[in-house]
Amino acid sequence: MIDIRIIKAPSAGTMNIIRSRSGARWGEDFSPAAVGLVQGKLIDMVVASDIAEKTAGVRVTDVRGSCPQNMVLLAIAGDTAEVVECLGRIEREGGEANGYR
Amino acid sequence: MIDIRIIKAPSAGTMNIIRSRSGARWGEDFSPAAVGLVQGKLIDMVVASDIAEKTAGVRVTDVRGSCPQNMVLLAIAGDTAEVVECLGRIEREGGEANGYR
Amino acid sequence: MIDIRIIKAPSAGTMNIIRSRSGARWGEDFSPAAVGLVQGKLIDMVVASDIAEKTAGVRVTDVRGSCPQNMVLLAIAGDTAEVVECLGRIEREGGEANGYR
Amino acid sequence: MIDIRIIKAPSAGTMNIIRSRSGARWGEDFSPAAVGLVQGKLIDMVVASDIAEKTAGVRVTDVRGSCPQNMVLLAIAGDTAEVVECLGRIEREGGEANGYR
Amino acid sequence: MIDIRIIKAPSAGTMNIIRSRSGARWGEDFSPAAVGLVQGKLIDMVVASDIAEKTAGVRVTDVRGSCPQNMVLLAIAGDTAEVVECLGRIEREGGEANGYR
Amino acid sequence: MIDIRIIKAPSAGTMNIIRSRSGARWGEDFSPAAVGLVQGKLIDMVVASDIAEKTAGVRVTDVRGSCPQNMVLLAIAGDTAEVVECLGRIEREGGEANGYR
Repeated sequence: MIDIRIIKAPSAGTMNIIRSRSGARWGEDFSPAAVGLVQGKLIDMVVASDIAEKTAGVRVTDVRGSCPQNMVLLAIAGDTAEVVECLGRIEREGGEANGYR
Repeated sequence: MIDIRIIKAPSAGTMNIIRSRSGARWGEDFSPAAVGLVQGKLIDMVVASDIAEKTAGVRVTDVRGSCPQNMVLLAIAGDTAEVVECLGRIEREGGEANGYR
Repeated sequence: MIDIRIIKAPSAGTMNIIRSRSGARWGEDFSPAAVGLVQGKLIDMVVASDIAEKTAGVRVTDVRGSCPQNMVLLAIAGDTAEVVECLGRIEREGGEANGYR
Repeated sequence: MIDIRIIKAPSAGTMNIIRSRSGARWGEDFSPAAVGLVQGKLIDMVVASDIAEKTAGVRVTDVRGSCPQNMVLLAIAGDTAEVVECLGRIEREGGEANGYR
Repeated sequence: MIDIRIIKAPSAGTMNIIRSRSGARWGEDFSPAAVGLVQGKLIDMVVASDIAEKTAGVRVTDVRGSCPQNMVLLAIAGDTAEVVECLGRIEREGGEANGYR
Repeated sequence: MIDIRIIKAPSAGTMNIIRSRSGARWGEDFSPAAVGLVQGKLIDMVVASDIAEKTAGVRVTDVRGSCPQNMVLLAIAGDTAEVVECLGRIEREGGEANGYR
């Protein structure tokens, strides 16, 4: 089960939450039109991260939970249409149960 | 699943619990008419936090659980009507399953 | 889901368990007639704590689980009738799902 | 839900596991006829511990899980009949849902 | 619920995983014909460990999870027939719900 | 329950996530045609790791979650046909419930 959400015109506080939990790979003045959020099992997050990195026009980072090595949430920033496109690909391709053939 | 509660005229001890677990962003003499509480998955808390920050008249902070980086509970303070309005928006908009289009 | 129990005439060892996990806000010679216990989600424990603090005649403390910042259990001490009254209020008012209006 | 087991004539290795996880309140030469084990929620373990301490002829200690402050398992040592009697009291009285009146 | 598996002719890498997570009580040249694995609740692992220690011809160690004090998996090494015999005893005797009388 | 996924032509970022969480046993220039991912209980991951190590043509590493000692995910790299063959063996042989005889 993968949870997917989108935040349009994210507030400065929201960008700060993501930045402070993600190793600060996004600059303080990074203000995208939309941020997509994807949460799920570690195995699905590795797959979703690979899909996002292969999608043009978006930037991806992980938002950490209780421990630094524990990736539970992906944030995908970009123009709204590109984020929506990327989230659609993750929903279609990222959670196929045992679809490895 | 998002859990939502409201505390009207919160006691001094309750404000102290919230303050001591939230990085002390609220002053010791901050005594709002009501405090709304929202608990859920990390992905939903990021969305709810964005909604609260865009709601006029309320102040929002996170109440941490077992680890400093682990946000599990949001506290939203303000006048009762404004807190109720904000909690209603979070209930309506914050938990839409995969509603990213 | 909130779990509620009562211990009448708690043993010295039981009082010691509660004291050693609660920041020692109760003295070593504090020997109440009854101790009520309430366990549930963090959001419900904040609400229950507020109810207990507004109940005359009882003293409330949190019993911590695996980490100091993680409140999972409330202990409510006092005369038996007062503790029962407080636990009844928590059962009736503390767990209302999304009852924030 | 409370889980209850009994080990008759526990091996030296089993006594060592319990001792090494319980703050060493039992001596290295303590070799009881039986050890009862009780596992459940923190709230039920506090109640069960109180019952065991009020039972004549048994000694009780907690066996810790992942963190020192996290009590998940009780060990109750003594003669077989006394341990069985104590486990029976815990099964009957320890897990009553919300039976606080 | 107890999970039970057996690995016949375990690879060097598998023996290394078990050794590195178990306090190194098995030597680097210990190469048993079979390794049985048992996973379950802490209470069941204490019981299973006692059964294994009373079984002739096998050696038992715990394989730790996320924290050193948290025993979640037992490894039982020996000749295949002896490991199978030991796993059978654990399956039959180790998970009896509340069977303490 | 074992979760199995495959990533074909994994991106550099995906290989970096795996490498940074696995003790760096794969070199920075290691760029396999495919990476298989396997997630499940600790007991199943030990069995799956043994199967992978006995499969010709693939390399296996663990991807850690929240704590260094906590193995939750296996990554299996190699040519696509070999990775698919290995994942098939894990699916068929790795999750047999209590199949130890």
